[in-house]
Amino acid sequence: MSKIVKIINLIRSNNPLVHNITNYVVMNNTANALLAIGGSPVMAHAVEEIEDIVSISSSLVLNIGTLSKNWINSMIKAGKIANKKKIPIVFDPVGAGASSYRNITAEKILNEVNISVIRANASEILSLAKQSNITKGVDSTIESNKAIDAAVKLSHKFKCTIVISGVIDYIITQELITKIKNGSYLMSKVTGMGCTSTGIIATCLGVENNSHLSSVAGMAIMGIAGENAEKISDGPGSFQSNFIDCLYKIDSDQIKLKLNHNEKN
Amino acid sequence: MSKIVKIINLIRSNNPLVHNITNYVVMNNTANALLAIGGSPVMAHAVEEIEDIVSISSSLVLNIGTLSKNWINSMIKAGKIANKKKIPIVFDPVGAGASSYRNITAEKILNEVNISVIRANASEILSLAKQSNITKGVDSTIESNKAIDAAVKLSHKFKCTIVISGVIDYIITQELITKIKNGSYLMSKVTGMGCTSTGIIATCLGVENNSHLSSVAGMAIMGIAGENAEKISDGPGSFQSNFIDCLYKIDSDQIKLKLNHNEKN
Amino acid sequence: MSKIVKIINLIRSNNPLVHNITNYVVMNNTANALLAIGGSPVMAHAVEEIEDIVSISSSLVLNIGTLSKNWINSMIKAGKIANKKKIPIVFDPVGAGASSYRNITAEKILNEVNISVIRANASEILSLAKQSNITKGVDSTIESNKAIDAAVKLSHKFKCTIVISGVIDYIITQELITKIKNGSYLMSKVTGMGCTSTGIIATCLGVENNSHLSSVAGMAIMGIAGENAEKISDGPGSFQSNFIDCLYKIDSDQIKLKLNHNEKN
Repeated sequence: MSKIVKIINLIRSNNPLVHNITNYVVMNNTANALLAIGGSPVMAHAVEEIEDIVSISSSLVLNIGTLSKNWINSMIKAGKIANKKKIPIVFDPVGAGASSYRNITAEKILNEVNISVIRANASEILSLAKQSNITKGVDSTIESNKAIDAAVKLSHKFKCTIVISGVIDYIITQELITKIKNGSYLMSKVTGMGCTSTGIIATCLGVENNSHLSSVAGMAIMGIAGENAEKISDGPGSFQSNFIDCLYKIDSDQIKLKLNHNEKN
Repeated sequence: MSKIVKIINLIRSNNPLVHNITNYVVMNNTANALLAIGGSPVMAHAVEEIEDIVSISSSLVLNIGTLSKNWINSMIKAGKIANKKKIPIVFDPVGAGASSYRNITAEKILNEVNISVIRANASEILSLAKQSNITKGVDSTIESNKAIDAAVKLSHKFKCTIVISGVIDYIITQELITKIKNGSYLMSKVTGMGCTSTGIIATCLGVENNSHLSSVAGMAIMGIAGENAEKISDGPGSFQSNFIDCLYKIDSDQIKLKLNHNEKN
Repeated sequence: MSKIVKIINLIRSNNPLVHNITNYVVMNNTANALLAIGGSPVMAHAVEEIEDIVSISSSLVLNIGTLSKNWINSMIKAGKIANKKKIPIVFDPVGAGASSYRNITAEKILNEVNISVIRANASEILSLAKQSNITKGVDSTIESNKAIDAAVKLSHKFKCTIVISGVIDYIITQELITKIKNGSYLMSKVTGMGCTSTGIIATCLGVENNSHLSSVAGMAIMGIAGENAEKISDGPGSFQSNFIDCLYKIDSDQIKLKLNHNEKN
């Protein structure tokens, strides 16, 4: 818990620059969420400037929400440069499973780039596992357990942390699993809250290298801000504004009082 | 009226997937409006995945607000696949009349794709009519009547429903005309409210095939949510949030009490 | 002061059409801000329609926030057409200094297009000056004074007004310098407020040719709306909505009471 508070304080003092190659739908929200928590977002996708922008960044987001050929090329290039410079990367495989193009792109990114954290929902995690031919080993009959099994295997295969967002968030690094039970039902009624989580995790990674810890911090921040925002909202429209206010005002007391999590190994 | 309530209930139980190939300006708002009413929005434009995404969708939006060559190609491809699979399409000819490129693109879409509903303002409808060489038959001297005459002719020519949004909304299917008199003056002060209407109509079409009925339902939902939002807003900024809350909370009582429409034939 | 009121009144009566070739992140906010003050925003970037759209516009915004090759080509083309038709242009060199690509693009635009106003922050102004080889002449040791010196030189070289936004805004036209001291600390916590300033200045230029006066008016409107919004906001999320409401409601009394500026020569 005090580790999460330390991350938030570091973000607010260091204002880490987070390079987002993300989708058109969420760019504005992601930028505002990152500013609210204390990060410095930069959105840039032209292949001509990828190297310059990655090089000055503390972390990188690759998000395939509205993918197309040129953007994928930029993502791969950005990922390789980030790897060379040891800049951590969070990958958001938006819509994996909805089209072959997304599946193939997600696979290509995972095979060509070393990712620190994959943040996705259960269905996307299952699609990644299927695409990586590891679903055969997923034997659970319960859907959410299937996603957890798949995530453990993906975490081993790609040597990264997997975050499954949902009513309960699972942060999985090989055998280490942390559950975060904070959040609000309104978060699923606002577009791009998953993408915002991805951006917040990347902001945490900008000040803390441990990908499991940064993912736990990111999801805790999201969940607690969501709970606080729900209390003062009349629906998903006001929630969206209030959520940003709550991110901006989150503090150590809120983390201490409200964090609802447990860890198993 | 009870038919509109039935559509809303179906949207909330079925969560129809609505594929939007739309403009950069409104993507976020459209996605949030569709989520608020109960739909499942997906934004995807890459030609490589158009077939997969259209195929799993209940309806399709084609919106030329920030058009460019690759996007138009994807729109035409998506439209043809939707036609083959009998997935209804709503077309939003944003800015028709403002450039030859928009006029030619709108004409191309209308000639190559069977559209269920065209949603536009009066000026865009008049431009489509001119582009389709049917304005010669538009004899009214009053501007709004001109647009209605043009819409009746477009409706015959393209065998579709035409929605003219404005202070009064006209839903026109050949000789059948329904007027919706709900709405708020603040709706014209927020960007993309027309595009939101287009998305809401598409969401209705995702659960109800009758294009006239779905358009009436869509415009009624927009107008009533707008009226409710106006009452609690201090300007167009707060209106934007409140409108989403009001969409989320719209219910059968509000439809019964507030729907202000009439039909002629 | 009465000149600023006159500009606002003209915007509200004339609703000048402002053509924005701008970045993905801010398009929605910019459009809503321009609508709120009384302008008519149009976003269009396809090279095929640039000529038609520029030709019907009262002013043009070129903003390189999420630049790429095709968009730059459209910006240059739009700029040249605007010059030929004497339509004023505001240039926003977002991120100048962050990549060679941005530096080279900014230089290209400044060399090939006659700009009426450059609106940027101090760091971007210093980058433009360096790129234009005029930093050698910038001798101040204090950072903000360096930016002012650089702006004076840029203003001479490119025969335009330079706006440096910050806690104090400087509007610089050769030797004429006006300071605006209005504003809110929350403006730096919301993405794209600088881009909004650029759009508001362009809206002013749509009704008033004097680029210094229009820039002063634009920054005064931004600052006063920001102060008013801060008073009723709980953080950057609610500020974003309230700012639009305050833009919509700004009036001559607010300008008279709150404008905090001075001019030197």
